[in-house]
Amino acid sequence: MSKTKSILTGIKPTGQVHIGNYAGMIRPTLDLMASNPDGDNYLFIANYHALNSIGDAGQIRQFTHEVAACFLALGLDLSHTNFYRQSDVPEVFELTQVLSSVTPKGLMNRAHAYKAAVDANADKPSAQPDDGVNMGLFTYPILMSADILLFDADVVPVGKDQIQHVEFARDIAGYFNRRYDTEFFTLPDHSVQENLEAIVGLDGRKMSKSYGNTIPLFADPKTRRKMINKIVTDSKLPEEPKDPDGNTVYELYAALAEPAEVTHLRARFEEGGMGYGDAKRILADKLDELFEVPAARFAEYMTDPGELEAMMEKASRHAKERAAAKVEAMRTLIGT
Amino acid sequence: MSKTKSILTGIKPTGQVHIGNYAGMIRPTLDLMASNPDGDNYLFIANYHALNSIGDAGQIRQFTHEVAACFLALGLDLSHTNFYRQSDVPEVFELTQVLSSVTPKGLMNRAHAYKAAVDANADKPSAQPDDGVNMGLFTYPILMSADILLFDADVVPVGKDQIQHVEFARDIAGYFNRRYDTEFFTLPDHSVQENLEAIVGLDGRKMSKSYGNTIPLFADPKTRRKMINKIVTDSKLPEEPKDPDGNTVYELYAALAEPAEVTHLRARFEEGGMGYGDAKRILADKLDELFEVPAARFAEYMTDPGELEAMMEKASRHAKERAAAKVEAMRTLIGT
Repeated sequence: MSKTKSILTGIKPTGQVHIGNYAGMIRPTLDLMASNPDGDNYLFIANYHALNSIGDAGQIRQFTHEVAACFLALGLDLSHTNFYRQSDVPEVFELTQVLSSVTPKGLMNRAHAYKAAVDANADKPSAQPDDGVNMGLFTYPILMSADILLFDADVVPVGKDQIQHVEFARDIAGYFNRRYDTEFFTLPDHSVQENLEAIVGLDGRKMSKSYGNTIPLFADPKTRRKMINKIVTDSKLPEEPKDPDGNTVYELYAALAEPAEVTHLRARFEEGGMGYGDAKRILADKLDELFEVPAARFAEYMTDPGELEAMMEKASRHAKERAAAKVEAMRTLIGT
Repeated sequence: MSKTKSILTGIKPTGQVHIGNYAGMIRPTLDLMASNPDGDNYLFIANYHALNSIGDAGQIRQFTHEVAACFLALGLDLSHTNFYRQSDVPEVFELTQVLSSVTPKGLMNRAHAYKAAVDANADKPSAQPDDGVNMGLFTYPILMSADILLFDADVVPVGKDQIQHVEFARDIAGYFNRRYDTEFFTLPDHSVQENLEAIVGLDGRKMSKSYGNTIPLFADPKTRRKMINKIVTDSKLPEEPKDPDGNTVYELYAALAEPAEVTHLRARFEEGGMGYGDAKRILADKLDELFEVPAARFAEYMTDPGELEAMMEKASRHAKERAAAKVEAMRTLIGT
């Protein structure tokens, strides 16, 4: 009998959740976890990774709360997925320390995020290579490895630019296993999620907090409809055929609706006879339909932090137990 | 009323305890803790720092056990000193993670131990600067800062070459306090211990495990006497006056005996009439006298790990409570 497969993924609480996060990360993650219902899956909110960029306690607290409420509101099934905040399993920090003692510094020198920061400094006159780099950024691949190895995850879904994270976790697991002549840590594999990609924002660029072109996931429906009505389109008349590709309204709909619905809207674009106002109404109706129920649940969790805490307590219980047992076993192995 | 002063120091369990450790670190530490009997003092065994150089669980366990037994056998007064292993307060690893997020990488680039490793590589043909440097070594000043800041230590006794450790802890406390606009962490001061220096070994060089010239602290008296009898001296006859300075037998005695006793032996060297055999007997007798009772207690702790664990449980209780409270308060401050 083969071992139960374990999938693990994390999300960094660094901003208000928007429909770009939903289409690009949250929905694929929910689907992925549901695809492995007999597995031991892990989904965590990386609130300590967020500290590397956010020094405001209120923001960290708010974003963490929102991400937790968001996944619960969208129906994350806790029967197949352990859901927790990094802070719920402080064992991960002890593991990080131990992994540091087996990780060559040379490996960290090659991390993409660190190299990007150094390259950016190279373009600035009189900047030192490490200007603006904090040790949290420099060492984050070790914390991330600890996140993965603590639960012996088999598969870590990533976007293409994050494959290195999982390769580093494999390398570091290997350093530990060789030092202690053991197979204590599972070597994780990555699986590239093609759909972990950004969708288009209100202004036609990639949807991103930094462009200010996002639609909040649980916006008030009236506000959302106003945002959609302001999307800029070309000036084709209702009766003219229209090109759906590159059209922001169509692309948002395509990222969110069911395939049959998307095919139908595509045909209406191409045939002509539908104005952009109608297309915008169809998109806004779809968002209302998708998010009406979750938005109500989300609002409940946001106004009742006690209820959310109780849910998270239950959702994280097994992960806490496993983390404690794993670190206890590690201590025996390393002699601490 | 002024705040109770808190002194903190740590010892790395990386070898069998010898009388060089005793004279150079253990005895001064016991004296220092005793000099602040109303204070909240902290003495810890840095078993996670030891992981940077020792990958053998049995060794780490044995050395940690020995250091613990050693301090208890030598009469560490638990009424004024909290005594614990790093592994007893895993909160220190969470704090390390948080401190990483506020520490510029540039600070670590300037750490003495890291720079020494890089300099050593510069002398080797075809070595890369970071060859042989693990991330535990590179980041150890952050863990050491966490060791100090976790308990709001006021004073950290150091040898001259370790002043930088405490300066880094001050710097890092300052980064945190400024980021969160708080005085949450006490800025520690160093106090240079003049006597935190090595004594002479059996062969006349500095006593050090790496020279193989040590006298184990709790050696069997007969073995110890044999070691002392093998100390090489010059060939002066008993009746001739002798120079105590530079004489290994005299210097070992001077490092361990009471001032009046030392003055007395010095006079006997200078006057003549005492052979080196007699001097060696006087030294061996002194060591028997100093360590007979502690050696018996040490042997008990070493043969009864349960008893040692029970003592450490009691000795570390307050430190555990304080660490938990401090990290809980920190979480409120940073929003995790």
